[in-house]
Parts: sequence; C-alpha cells; structure tokens
Amino acid sequence: MVEKRRPIKVNEAIKKVMAYAKTGQIEEIPIEQAYGRFLGEELVADHDVPMFDRSPYDGFAVRAEDTKEANRNNPVTLEVIGEIGAGSVFEGPVGKKQAVRIMTGAQMPDDCDAVVMLELANEFEQGGKPYFDLKKQMKSGENISFQGEDTKKGTVLASKGTYINPGIVALLATFGYKYVPVSKKPTIGIIATGSELLQVDEPLQPGKIRNSNAYMVHAQIERAGGHPIYFGQFSDELEVCYEQVKNTLEKVDFLITTGGVSVGDYDYLPEIYKMLGANVLFNKIAMRPGSVTTIAEINGKLLFGLSGNPSACYVGMELFVRPIIRTHLQSSRPYVNKTVAILGADFPKPNPFDRFVRGHLRYENGQLIATPSGLDKSNVVTSLAHANVLIQLPGGTRAYEKGMGVDVLLLEDQEGTTS
Amino acid sequence: MVEKRRPIKVNEAIKKVMAYAKTGQIEEIPIEQAYGRFLGEELVADHDVPMFDRSPYDGFAVRAEDTKEANRNNPVTLEVIGEIGAGSVFEGPVGKKQAVRIMTGAQMPDDCDAVVMLELANEFEQGGKPYFDLKKQMKSGENISFQGEDTKKGTVLASKGTYINPGIVALLATFGYKYVPVSKKPTIGIIATGSELLQVDEPLQPGKIRNSNAYMVHAQIERAGGHPIYFGQFSDELEVCYEQVKNTLEKVDFLITTGGVSVGDYDYLPEIYKMLGANVLFNKIAMRPGSVTTIAEINGKLLFGLSGNPSACYVGMELFVRPIIRTHLQSSRPYVNKTVAILGADFPKPNPFDRFVRGHLRYENGQLIATPSGLDKSNVVTSLAHANVLIQLPGGTRAYEKGMGVDVLLLEDQEGTTS
Repeated sequence: MVEKRRPIKVNEAIKKVMAYAKTGQIEEIPIEQAYGRFLGEELVADHDVPMFDRSPYDGFAVRAEDTKEANRNNPVTLEVIGEIGAGSVFEGPVGKKQAVRIMTGAQMPDDCDAVVMLELANEFEQGGKPYFDLKKQMKSGENISFQGEDTKKGTVLASKGTYINPGIVALLATFGYKYVPVSKKPTIGIIATGSELLQVDEPLQPGKIRNSNAYMVHAQIERAGGHPIYFGQFSDELEVCYEQVKNTLEKVDFLITTGGVSVGDYDYLPEIYKMLGANVLFNKIAMRPGSVTTIAEINGKLLFGLSGNPSACYVGMELFVRPIIRTHLQSSRPYVNKTVAILGADFPKPNPFDRFVRGHLRYENGQLIATPSGLDKSNVVTSLAHANVLIQLPGGTRAYEKGMGVDVLLLEDQEGTTS
Repeated sequence: MVEKRRPIKVNEAIKKVMAYAKTGQIEEIPIEQAYGRFLGEELVADHDVPMFDRSPYDGFAVRAEDTKEANRNNPVTLEVIGEIGAGSVFEGPVGKKQAVRIMTGAQMPDDCDAVVMLELANEFEQGGKPYFDLKKQMKSGENISFQGEDTKKGTVLASKGTYINPGIVALLATFGYKYVPVSKKPTIGIIATGSELLQVDEPLQPGKIRNSNAYMVHAQIERAGGHPIYFGQFSDELEVCYEQVKNTLEKVDFLITTGGVSVGDYDYLPEIYKMLGANVLFNKIAMRPGSVTTIAEINGKLLFGLSGNPSACYVGMELFVRPIIRTHLQSSRPYVNKTVAILGADFPKPNPFDRFVRGHLRYENGQLIATPSGLDKSNVVTSLAHANVLIQLPGGTRAYEKGMGVDVLLLEDQEGTTS
C-alpha cells in the first residue's frame, strides 16, 4: 500500500524551512579575494569623501575676491606662484592677485576658494614669471569638490550580506579594507542516491543514466555562495546508507541528498529520517516539479531531500536551499529576486499545483519576455542549460496565455529579495 | 604647450582594439571546478537523451494490443510478471495479457509499447499472483519517453565560449565530461600610477587618496573571466617606470595601467609608449567619462591605459578590456549585453560626447527602469557600488528626459552580445 502524503503550499514549505535559518560566522580575507563573496559586516566610510576640498579640473586655484572686477572687457591678471600635483599639498600662503596651478584631484590651497578651468586662463610670461588673464568673475566655492560632498564619514555604504561586486571592491579599497570581513561560506554536503545512476566517467549501460544532479547542485551551491562537498553516491544497503548520512551530517552545515524521497521500495530517505530521529518538516509540496521534495531537521541542522528528477532538484535547490545559504551569509534579502515578465508561450492545461517552469528571460525594447526553455517535461536536462529564470505559474483552474504578465524568479541575480 | 588630441568615436575605438582580439588556449579541468568558467569547445551530446525508451511515470509497462477491448464497462485483466526499478532492465519476454511494474525513468521492456499510470490500475491478487484491471484502451507509444526525444546524439548543446552555469554543468555530467575543456583565463597585469595614491593599508595623508582602481579593475577582470595579477604601483621615475612596464609586459597576455594617460607632467604613459615603440591606437575618445583612455599595441599585445578616475577606469574596462577577454575565452558574443530601458531621471544638459552613466536597473511590472546611481561626477566612487548597468546617452545637442527609452549595458550579464 502506498503512503498517502498531504501536500502543503510552496510558501508554507518555505516558511517551515526558514524557521531553521541561521546566520553564520565571519572571516577576514585579503581584498584581492573579496570579489564574489558577501560582506560579513556593514561597509562604513572611515573618512569623508573627498577627504579634503579638491579640484575636479585641471586649472588654477584662485581667491574669488581677486576676480570680482573681471569681465569680458576687463580681464584681471593673476600671478602663478606654484603648482600642485595630485597627491601633493601647497604649503605656502596665496596672497592678493596670486593663483596656484592645480591638477585634477589635488587638494585646494587653504587661501583659495575657487578653481579657474585651464581653458579660461589666458597664460603668458612676464619678467620670467608666469601669469594669466581671466575675463570672468569667480564665485567663492566655484569648481571645488568639497570635503564630504560624496560621502560623509560614518555613512553605511552597504549592508552586511551584500554581494561584493567590483564597485563594492572599489569602496573597500577606498576605506582601507586590506582585509575584508566576509561571511564564511556554509559547508554543504551532497549525496546522490539512485541505483540507476552511473558515475560521470562510467561507460553507459542499458537502463542507467549518468549522475548529473550532484554536479548541478554543486554549481548551484556555488552560485548561491556556499561551499559544496560531494560525498559521492549512496550505498544500495539501507544500513550502510544510514551510516553514511549520519557520518556526513557531522561534517557539514547542511546536507543535500538527491533522489530517494519518493514513495517506493528504492527510496530510502524516509526510512533514514526515521532512524535518525529527524523531524520531517514536510514530504509533499503542491508544486511541479518537485512535489516529493522532503526537508527534515535534526538538532537544528537541515537535511534537504531533493528529488532525483533534474528539474525538480534544480527548483528545490533554488526555492529552499538558496535562502538558507543567503541567510547564513548575513543577507536580509535571502530569496531569489523576482519580477513580472511577459509570458512568451501558451500553457493551455491548468494544473492544480504551482508550477516553476525553466525559462529564458530576454529583454525586448524595455520589456521582459520569459519563454519556457525547451519542453516542459520534468526529466528534460537540456532545458536547464539555457534557463536564467523560473517562470512561476500559480496552481488552479486557469490556463496561461502568451502575453500575460507572470512572476519570474531571476536565477542569476545577486541582489535577492526579502520575501 | 598642451598636446592637442583628436577624439575618435567610441565605436571606432572599440573596432580598433578588437582588430587585435585573439582567442586563447584551452585546458581541461575537473567538472567540480567548471562552474563560472567558459566552454573551450562546443558541448556535444555523446548519446541520445533518453538513451533508451523509458517510462516517465510509475506504472505498468503493457502491450497496447492487449488493451484493445478495454473500456469503462469492460476491464481487461493483466498479469504482473515482474518489476523494473530505475537502472535495471527487464530481460524476459512479456507475453499476451502480461505486464511489468515499472518505476519512473526505467527502461521499457522490449515487448511493451505503452505505460499504464499507477492510479489507473486496479491491483489485486489471485492464487498468489499479482494482477490488475484496466478500464482504458492504451495506444501504442502512450506514456513513453522515446529514445532521443529530448536530444539526439551529436546535437550541439552549447557553443564554445558559453558561460558555464549550473544547467550547463548538468549537461556536462550527463554527457560524461569528468574533465571539461574550458577556455584558459588570460593573465592580465595591473599597474597603478599616480603620486596621489596610497596603498590600501596606508594611513590617510593630506592631499592623497587610497588606490581603489587597481582592486576594482582586479574584480572587473575576474567578472569578465580573466586572471588578474596586481603588480603594484609605478615608480615616480620615468626610467624605472619604463623598465617596470617592459618587464611586466613579458609576464602577461595584456597589461592594464590605471592613471597617467592625461596630458600632463605627471602622466608618464604617453612617453613610455614612445620608449617601447608601441603603436598607440588612440589616446582620446569622444566619451564621458574616460575620454583620455589610451590603448596601444606592441607586437600584437595590448596595453590598456585606463584613466585614473575611478568611473572612467570602470567604463574603460567594460567597453574595451572585457570584449578582448571574452574573445580570448572563445566567445562569439564578447560585448557587454545591452537592452533598452526606461530612463529614471532627467539629463537636461546636452553633451557633445557619448556618456556612460553608472546606473541601477530595476524591474517594475515587466518593465526595466534605469536610474543613475548617485551623482554623475566622474570622481564619485560610491556610485559604482550599486551600479549594475551603464546608461548610454549618445552625444549631441539633445537632452534626455525621464521616461525616455535608452540603451543600458548589463554589467552582470554573462551572455554577452555580438556587437
């Protein structure tokens, strides 16, 4: 007799799992290794930017009051008494009708309060000394980048859990982070099950298929920011199997198994959960693919029982494992980001379960079009290759038509969302 | 006297650089390390998928001809003579009015040509033997996933230069790539110039700023798929400088310098290009920021002279270095992908030069909105942190208004585009 399972809604399932989400530890790494990691702490400005009043142009630092009389018909003449390269500071005083040549980014002399752009200065020499004529009155503060104008010291520039992109790296360098506090990657074990599975380098055999799920999940964990470890394939013996799961659990933050969660003689996981004394959060979800996705918890440690079906495995990973990883990485936006896109194909058959269809999102004249990638059979591996979204079709009695707006989950996005 | 430079159009500049683009070598790496790399060869199906006719459901494999008479009022009775688990093969013959229990994904027995789903079979036992009644006629081929239905052997599933995402990893495993031929990462040297620059761990000093460009470019190279090496900061002595560039060039596929390309006493690069006998492709581009971006070539090796200004440096990297890296990685779509988005702010001042404004792209009800991130001053570092697009505003006499459609370059996209 087949066990009867009661399906729960996807959102309810996510909520049950997220009740066990925990933030992880922090480690410091050299800034050269920070790209692609996640901030372990808030990124705070340790000084004003700019840190001093500076010139945004090549030109001359002047005292605005000396230019009061200047106009098209009445140039004022200023003496150039020195030069300030980027990185150096002009120490001396700047007196009446004097100016200093200044380079882009250099610090303003204390006595000056405006910058004349190079092209407005009519340079000449007299008696071996440099001068320039100016036909324009300068306002005090004109052409100056003021201290703190961009960012004030103490400003929080990025929250913890933020994905470290090249711009964040630039900020980290600006604010002196030679070592960057990043979220430590959770270690996630992977065990594949299924007597039909061949190792990736085994020759093909009748009735068998190569194990692709373990490697796929490996890459998905990396994309989500975790550290995957593949522990290989399960034994076909229940007792050995049980020992393998038990031992592996001790070495990881979370454990993912692929396959073995259906209701069947070859599906050991339900029995193993019992033997472990694990608390099964759910073993049936009202979704396609992946309805058999089973998640259990033992002493607060999560065991993700993903389906052996590649598409179901893929979806289960993104919906349930990813937010756990991102929370571990300190993110307050742990869920896969979503948006509305225009459906690029018909789905005439209604389905009582929520569907997550592998799709490809493209941009067309400012609009987003999501098209299912390949056939929507749950055993189709090739359709995953070009998928960059999951098209979410809520279950019910309705059909979906080309041109409708539907939610899509953005698989390559790193910003995430809060729910 | 200041040297007069003639600006060339951005597209012309890109064309001049791309004339020196070369594809790189290929290396084999374990599949576990393939995520985030780029395919060095086409990914070809080495067998049909499915490799054999298989059952997409749990059920019974039957001979359709035995069910011809079945209907609601007249069930046929079939004897269950065996069972096929996933991964095993049913060897014996299946005779008249016989059936075999079959699991999802298992290979069809040779004699059967349809699958009865479990829920349609009314199972019972008689004389110790299992039977089921069926009230429905089955068509030959019904509920079978046929060999090659998903993919035929020899199909090209992804072209070389494709970014390896988790779906591609799944395909690689399916087709037996324990070792994956990937494009070798080009080695790209980075040298920072500028007497105003402090090391990232130096205490702040008047007039100076920390070197953020080198680390930012380091991360941008990684994002583009290259292998960056930071060689540190230039000497302030021209001769030493020249030796540094010359020596570094021998160790890398390309060399990036930041800063030192303006027209000024502190800008050594133009002089160094002369000393090297390098062919300067251009030293002025009609774009903002980054008009001083200078690219030279010596014996086919490219020297990218990016501006010392962070935003200009960032833009120069994405427009000119990235397509060179992606071509090296075998991609036929080496350019940053672009789309049209709705401008989220006004740009009332026309500019004769093409502008590339750091922006943040967000999704709103199926539409793309691109908003400039932070002030559009070219020295603003903080605006780079949240930028995921560059908003492209063609130069000319026109202003740009909120709500207009504009091109945006998608910085985090991995698909790229052909032009």
